[in-house]
Amino acid sequence: MAALKDLISAQQLQKKDVERLLSSAKKMEALLKEKSVSPCNKIVATLFFEPSTRTHSSFAAAAMRLGCHVLPFNVSNSSIAKGESFEDTIRMFDTYADALVLRHPQAGFAQIAADAASHPVVNAGDGGNEHPTQALIDIYTIMSLKKKISGLNVTLAGDLRHARAMRSLFYLLGMFGANITLASPAGLEMETSLVRKVDEKFSPKISFSRSPSKESDILYVCRIQKERFASPAAAEAAQDAFRIDSRFLSGAKKDMAILHPLPKHLEIPPEVDASPHAKYFQQAKYAVPVRMAVLKEILAL
Amino acid sequence: MAALKDLISAQQLQKKDVERLLSSAKKMEALLKEKSVSPCNKIVATLFFEPSTRTHSSFAAAAMRLGCHVLPFNVSNSSIAKGESFEDTIRMFDTYADALVLRHPQAGFAQIAADAASHPVVNAGDGGNEHPTQALIDIYTIMSLKKKISGLNVTLAGDLRHARAMRSLFYLLGMFGANITLASPAGLEMETSLVRKVDEKFSPKISFSRSPSKESDILYVCRIQKERFASPAAAEAAQDAFRIDSRFLSGAKKDMAILHPLPKHLEIPPEVDASPHAKYFQQAKYAVPVRMAVLKEILAL
Amino acid sequence: MAALKDLISAQQLQKKDVERLLSSAKKMEALLKEKSVSPCNKIVATLFFEPSTRTHSSFAAAAMRLGCHVLPFNVSNSSIAKGESFEDTIRMFDTYADALVLRHPQAGFAQIAADAASHPVVNAGDGGNEHPTQALIDIYTIMSLKKKISGLNVTLAGDLRHARAMRSLFYLLGMFGANITLASPAGLEMETSLVRKVDEKFSPKISFSRSPSKESDILYVCRIQKERFASPAAAEAAQDAFRIDSRFLSGAKKDMAILHPLPKHLEIPPEVDASPHAKYFQQAKYAVPVRMAVLKEILAL
Repeated sequence: MAALKDLISAQQLQKKDVERLLSSAKKMEALLKEKSVSPCNKIVATLFFEPSTRTHSSFAAAAMRLGCHVLPFNVSNSSIAKGESFEDTIRMFDTYADALVLRHPQAGFAQIAADAASHPVVNAGDGGNEHPTQALIDIYTIMSLKKKISGLNVTLAGDLRHARAMRSLFYLLGMFGANITLASPAGLEMETSLVRKVDEKFSPKISFSRSPSKESDILYVCRIQKERFASPAAAEAAQDAFRIDSRFLSGAKKDMAILHPLPKHLEIPPEVDASPHAKYFQQAKYAVPVRMAVLKEILAL
Repeated sequence: MAALKDLISAQQLQKKDVERLLSSAKKMEALLKEKSVSPCNKIVATLFFEPSTRTHSSFAAAAMRLGCHVLPFNVSNSSIAKGESFEDTIRMFDTYADALVLRHPQAGFAQIAADAASHPVVNAGDGGNEHPTQALIDIYTIMSLKKKISGLNVTLAGDLRHARAMRSLFYLLGMFGANITLASPAGLEMETSLVRKVDEKFSPKISFSRSPSKESDILYVCRIQKERFASPAAAEAAQDAFRIDSRFLSGAKKDMAILHPLPKHLEIPPEVDASPHAKYFQQAKYAVPVRMAVLKEILAL
Repeated sequence: MAALKDLISAQQLQKKDVERLLSSAKKMEALLKEKSVSPCNKIVATLFFEPSTRTHSSFAAAAMRLGCHVLPFNVSNSSIAKGESFEDTIRMFDTYADALVLRHPQAGFAQIAADAASHPVVNAGDGGNEHPTQALIDIYTIMSLKKKISGLNVTLAGDLRHARAMRSLFYLLGMFGANITLASPAGLEMETSLVRKVDEKFSPKISFSRSPSKESDILYVCRIQKERFASPAAAEAAQDAFRIDSRFLSGAKKDMAILHPLPKHLEIPPEVDASPHAKYFQQAKYAVPVRMAVLKEILAL
């Protein structure tokens, strides 16, 4: 059972890898209650080529909780402006740090970084491609809430074409045998080639829908952005159809859990926060222990 | 004698709370001379919704001196841009950190954060409202210089309407029985309701003036900004009347100490730095030990 | 053999100082392979008044590898905007940190900072003046590659008028007895007064050229910026004459090593990276151990 070198894609993971990381995250949750951790003197560089608060801060906190230093980089102050190649920037940080956490606006750049670096690279979101640690957090949350994934009815609802975290999660849900409903407005469907791949590899039950289902065990909501639509009216219609508000929740399955990667905006109004269905703040709490588990493994701590 | 959970306002403090923090700050001064501190592995998040160098850096240094990690956030890179609510941002950092230090341009937001967070919140300045740790630094400085506060003649001079640190300090000076002169240009007086509150609660001697007094034991100077006046001429007249330069200092009380929260600009020209009256650099040195005392208490270190 | 207080200029260094730092850097290289370092609880403030990725990150990594905290400051969020003097900003950080690493766009500001601060100041580049730690990294690299400097043929090629790191390196190469060729386009020559000073002090062999030499043991390349020329055509002609590409390298001295402070752009196309001549990535790796040696000495760790 070899440990991971890089974590670039959910699709590189075997089920046993996911299970090992989830079990490690459980231990990290316990570790977070300990008073002190011995410093490990490792450096985790966080290379963010597009802005992020949540992903960056939770990776940084995870590294700190493991006793590591965090070396942050964001593109605004960068030598990139002087025309340096992406690979050269990666090679440079590879000489400073023991692991690189990368967020990049272009799909595929996490793999390019992993090829250029001698130290491990963790993909913290690369364009419309993948966001594997978010998917691990999501799987960990579902396991914590429902104690299993196989046979659960899980709906992914929203813009499934552009949400990288949904792509990674969809793959892992297939791997763990969930019954998956892909609910999205027309034009924002999950990419066909990925659906085919998940189907061929894991043969889960996959259905398609134009609206979120009240019958789900897990309703995973993600944002629908206005910019994706031809007209403001079309955008508003789609956003209305996918809004999870108290009206939608009346009559929903009693123990349906609502998840969201956050930050949320109008797709889940604040009135829902107090509902017993709302589990996204609990989900947010798992970001640190799950990312600790990932960093611990790739740093061989 | 219960320890503080949050530190939002000088007005929440009892005299014994202030005395306990000042005495702890004294120990922190000693600790700063020690070679090493064992790391505590706590995380202090510094959430700055408006720019600050001095307050941010001294809080960060204080946390580091206690062996903590610092998780910085400033609004420019934030998910706030994606429409997330302030409370959601606070809840998120509440899952990453053991304490939140907050600077916000709007009055009252420190309390809103404290209500949303399970971990302690320290107000590092909220709009025109309060800046309690600056006031503690000021009180600590006066005690270090004069060994007492009761009966001292303390003048607060400048724009007392918009300076949040002056509001917090005024309250604590009243609590400790100083004779307080509030010297400000017309229209920039200390808010009447706060004057009344301090009067009712502590009955200190309070006088009002249109110019700084040469007879003070402590002359506390704060900035007067041009933007507060109807005309450039009015602004200049007020700034001239409140400028503390060598001409003003000739004939001043021999042991009068000049304090200033810094950064200073034209209100105290550089010529004054070398004067024996100038104590603002000494005051600046107390920022770290006093903020260490606050963080130590709320983190229960 | 007194240790340094500040490191402002290569010209303040005696040969024995350089040798002591190089020997310490060797130990730092070994230390980097150790699993853990005990935290020292010192704070290194990195004050960057102009953007830098590489210099900032490698100083930060060096401080972390020594177990120190890093307190970063960059000018964009600064109180400087409120009109604070440079000296006051330095005095402020002097109360927070145990050492100050300074990058500033104006020549001479590192010395001004050292005069204002009680703690040590390291010059991380001040305008067109000096960048002494880069020069130490370069000397360390040459020693690692060639085991000596005396008698080596070293060409500095590019814009020698504006490259502060070249000025510091030129001085140290003179000190160590290299045969130095200064190759630059017309108008971008090394400053005459510095050439005279190095000549008078160390009498090395110095020659001048309008093109990089294929016969060098070390070919040190630095950028030529378009903005330095009267016309785009003149800029392009100069850049072409100083481009180190595979055509130039065919027929170059067999063991000629190409160095570059990075980031590189068009002056060395990516095709050269795989050449055995290319040593700039190895050079980049020495940034952390050499800067560790400097910080260790000035912090008296």
